[in-house]
Amino acid sequence: MQHDDLAPVWIAGEWRAAAAIGSFNAENPATGEALSARYPVSDWADIDAALEAAARAFDDLQAMPARAIAGFLNAYADRIDAEAAAICETAAEETGLPASPRLREIELPRTTGQLRQAAAAALDPSWRLPVIDEAANIRSVLEPLGPVVVFGPNNFPLAFNGVSGGDFAAAIAAGNPVIAKAHSTHPGTCRRLAECAEGAVRETGMPAGTVQMLFGLRREDGVRLAGDPRLGAAAFTGSRTAGMALKAAADVVGKPVYLEMSSVNPVAILPGALEERAAEIVDELVTSALMGTGQFCTNPGLIFLVRGAATDTFLAELADRYNAAPCGTLLGKGAQRGLVEGIEALIAAGAEVLCGARPAARPGYAWSNTLLRVSGARFLEAAEALQTEAFGNATLAVVAESRAQLPALLARCEGNLTGCVYSARDGRDDADYEPVARALRPRVGRLLNDKMPTGVAVSPAMNHGGPFPATGHPHFTAVGLPAAMRRFTRLACYDNVRPERLPEALRMRNGGG
Amino acid sequence: MQHDDLAPVWIAGEWRAAAAIGSFNAENPATGEALSARYPVSDWADIDAALEAAARAFDDLQAMPARAIAGFLNAYADRIDAEAAAICETAAEETGLPASPRLREIELPRTTGQLRQAAAAALDPSWRLPVIDEAANIRSVLEPLGPVVVFGPNNFPLAFNGVSGGDFAAAIAAGNPVIAKAHSTHPGTCRRLAECAEGAVRETGMPAGTVQMLFGLRREDGVRLAGDPRLGAAAFTGSRTAGMALKAAADVVGKPVYLEMSSVNPVAILPGALEERAAEIVDELVTSALMGTGQFCTNPGLIFLVRGAATDTFLAELADRYNAAPCGTLLGKGAQRGLVEGIEALIAAGAEVLCGARPAARPGYAWSNTLLRVSGARFLEAAEALQTEAFGNATLAVVAESRAQLPALLARCEGNLTGCVYSARDGRDDADYEPVARALRPRVGRLLNDKMPTGVAVSPAMNHGGPFPATGHPHFTAVGLPAAMRRFTRLACYDNVRPERLPEALRMRNGGG
Repeated sequence: MQHDDLAPVWIAGEWRAAAAIGSFNAENPATGEALSARYPVSDWADIDAALEAAARAFDDLQAMPARAIAGFLNAYADRIDAEAAAICETAAEETGLPASPRLREIELPRTTGQLRQAAAAALDPSWRLPVIDEAANIRSVLEPLGPVVVFGPNNFPLAFNGVSGGDFAAAIAAGNPVIAKAHSTHPGTCRRLAECAEGAVRETGMPAGTVQMLFGLRREDGVRLAGDPRLGAAAFTGSRTAGMALKAAADVVGKPVYLEMSSVNPVAILPGALEERAAEIVDELVTSALMGTGQFCTNPGLIFLVRGAATDTFLAELADRYNAAPCGTLLGKGAQRGLVEGIEALIAAGAEVLCGARPAARPGYAWSNTLLRVSGARFLEAAEALQTEAFGNATLAVVAESRAQLPALLARCEGNLTGCVYSARDGRDDADYEPVARALRPRVGRLLNDKMPTGVAVSPAMNHGGPFPATGHPHFTAVGLPAAMRRFTRLACYDNVRPERLPEALRMRNGGG
Repeated sequence: MQHDDLAPVWIAGEWRAAAAIGSFNAENPATGEALSARYPVSDWADIDAALEAAARAFDDLQAMPARAIAGFLNAYADRIDAEAAAICETAAEETGLPASPRLREIELPRTTGQLRQAAAAALDPSWRLPVIDEAANIRSVLEPLGPVVVFGPNNFPLAFNGVSGGDFAAAIAAGNPVIAKAHSTHPGTCRRLAECAEGAVRETGMPAGTVQMLFGLRREDGVRLAGDPRLGAAAFTGSRTAGMALKAAADVVGKPVYLEMSSVNPVAILPGALEERAAEIVDELVTSALMGTGQFCTNPGLIFLVRGAATDTFLAELADRYNAAPCGTLLGKGAQRGLVEGIEALIAAGAEVLCGARPAARPGYAWSNTLLRVSGARFLEAAEALQTEAFGNATLAVVAESRAQLPALLARCEGNLTGCVYSARDGRDDADYEPVARALRPRVGRLLNDKMPTGVAVSPAMNHGGPFPATGHPHFTAVGLPAAMRRFTRLACYDNVRPERLPEALRMRNGGG
């Protein structure tokens, strides 16, 4: 293995040659061409060194005030802003996502906004939910867990990146060091971000090992890492298969593992809404379903409608719009394979092709915009197979026999990040809303009315989470501060502890400041 | 199988003959004699029926106001109070715990107090952590998860019973139906409590299936139950082996599972404290370690001291006191087997017997009060084996080579519910406190100063939880309201949902009432 042409890994505060057992390169998915930079696949020795450095950093971080952590997060956001053009250029090359507006005007500001919000959240001790029982002399507070490994996804190279995204920001803000695993489709983006992080670490005097970055890992090493006792928690966004392997390893050693896996995001469109505003809803659905080539965690992949002429017209119009829309770039070879396999599984389960389901007439990784249809009766027979995630620009419409069948169909949905109900504004769907919403509510993390699910506002009230298999635990959210920080904490109780030995957040009296 | 002499199970609002595949009886552990009542081991059909009834009850419960749930909890507490004498008589017979004061004056009032606290907590919507973002029109709130199965332990037949204890109260208060699995050592106590619950369910008009009770289950059926998709969550208090089997089943289907398993509850006694008040500390340790024959989750099983004459004197005095104290009753055959195996494992790992480690000279299930000693050097060599839980009246003293070795020893501790540090009142131990506490803090749910860990106050600030293997997730507590209720919830977000369709807790404006 020649090491001198390989990118270094960032361990214990230094960019150093990896203990490489292989290498890989990214591709430009818009063309399918290999990019020249080569990145290492690390041996366990690198992971081990990162875990040791993270444990030391955690010790040091615990002694640092919240304002130091906030200072780092703000400095990091500033450096990302300063390097925005270069970061977005690299990210566009590696992901096929448009540099502008998607990356430069939308995702990058969201990313730096999240980092700054996390900084602000870290400064307000209320996020720790301190509880002080003066009579019993018992106090409790949330405290950081320890080193967190973050495995980012392919679809948001900035806002969900392991070294800059929501999980990263939440873990750091809660006081934990992060070991970031770069996604193999955009290692150059990860490296650019990590360099900004390194500058901010140095500038603000954070412990070496507060942030570290590894590029490639053997699958078995990634799993071993998720179950390493030195870790506080793991966070992962990606496929169900990979997520479940990490979860199994973490579960055995009782480590929290936060997963965002598959979600088809059901949308129920009640008949009155279709009568009232079909054209509007077609617009909203096309925009939401094809945005980013459908590669959003909250992409509306499963649409429930009620049989009738209006539904046929709606689907015909939708197919026309899908046919007319350009086929976007998929995030890479793996993304294309996953999409195609997903579409094939849906067809094998009984879905009929209304449009697409064939290669796109363009270079690079792409597939034609695909609309599928299946009956409610068939959905009841093969509900699991018909919820196979076809991650990308594909949509399955399930046509219920009647309004009355809708709740029964929705009750067969697996756990999802979101669920939407469109109903008429004039109240004519109101009798159907309640049973439909009742079926959907326990199965989704976020219930929407008259609105498509893409667009995850960075709001303290947001839930970007949901029942399994959308995530691994329905109590927690990956977006929305301070709630997202609480994932990376343990409850710590102080019983009869002498006042001068209490952590700062517990020294104040209830109601005091 | 003759069914007419078997106790019935409580399913879907009716006490009915079990689909029995076997039966069992309890024993009086004070004498080892079998008790006459026979209880069924249920076939899966009973579990299936209970799951179906619980799912229906959950639907109905979601439509009920918090005051209905609170009314039920209060009515149930009143009925337990009214039947207190009979309940405690049965519990004493089945567990060997003294009817008075332990059961009648301590555990029963704690149990009804928990139920009433849970009722009060249910009435205050702040437990749901509602967050309202009016600008974005997004709101989130904690909502109940669905049916919860509670497997109670052997050691608190009332306060942690699956049908009356802390997990039960928290799950119900959060709006979930409970399927209670009776512990095989005290089925008659469970039945008496369930009869009180039944009266309260009827009196307050709760859905049939709000509370259900099963007695025996095949091991594989218990595991299958914990992984049933109709379940919202499982809660378990007991052995690590059983807990891990339930956890594995629940983890595969992504269901929250809350476990309280093993904990040896390290106590570090710094040399200054021993110089200052050895006699006081001996008193506290003997009381705490032998209370309830040491069968408390927070029993101080592992004592860390520093080598020296004072420590030798302390241990000699402790051994005298252990020898002089009566040997209490163990909770049954399984408890005795577990204790003896635990002591044997500690001896095999290098612990020296200072006293006990032999059968008790009395009838029934009992073992002599046991004190073991091992060096710090040996503890470092066999840390895992020397943390084998010997649940009962056994204590292992680890004698560090020096003050400086203490943090290194404590850093080898597994996750525990509690950790204590005794230090001199006059400050002479202060230089050692910080490194000792720093090693202990991330490894325990509750850190105590100058106080033994038994006695888990029902305080909103309590944490009865901790890192694995003490529990399965360090963010949550089993005692302390409202935090304990949050285990049985999912985060539910409402995005652009029309105002009249919002749950009650989200209709108010921020800061409004």
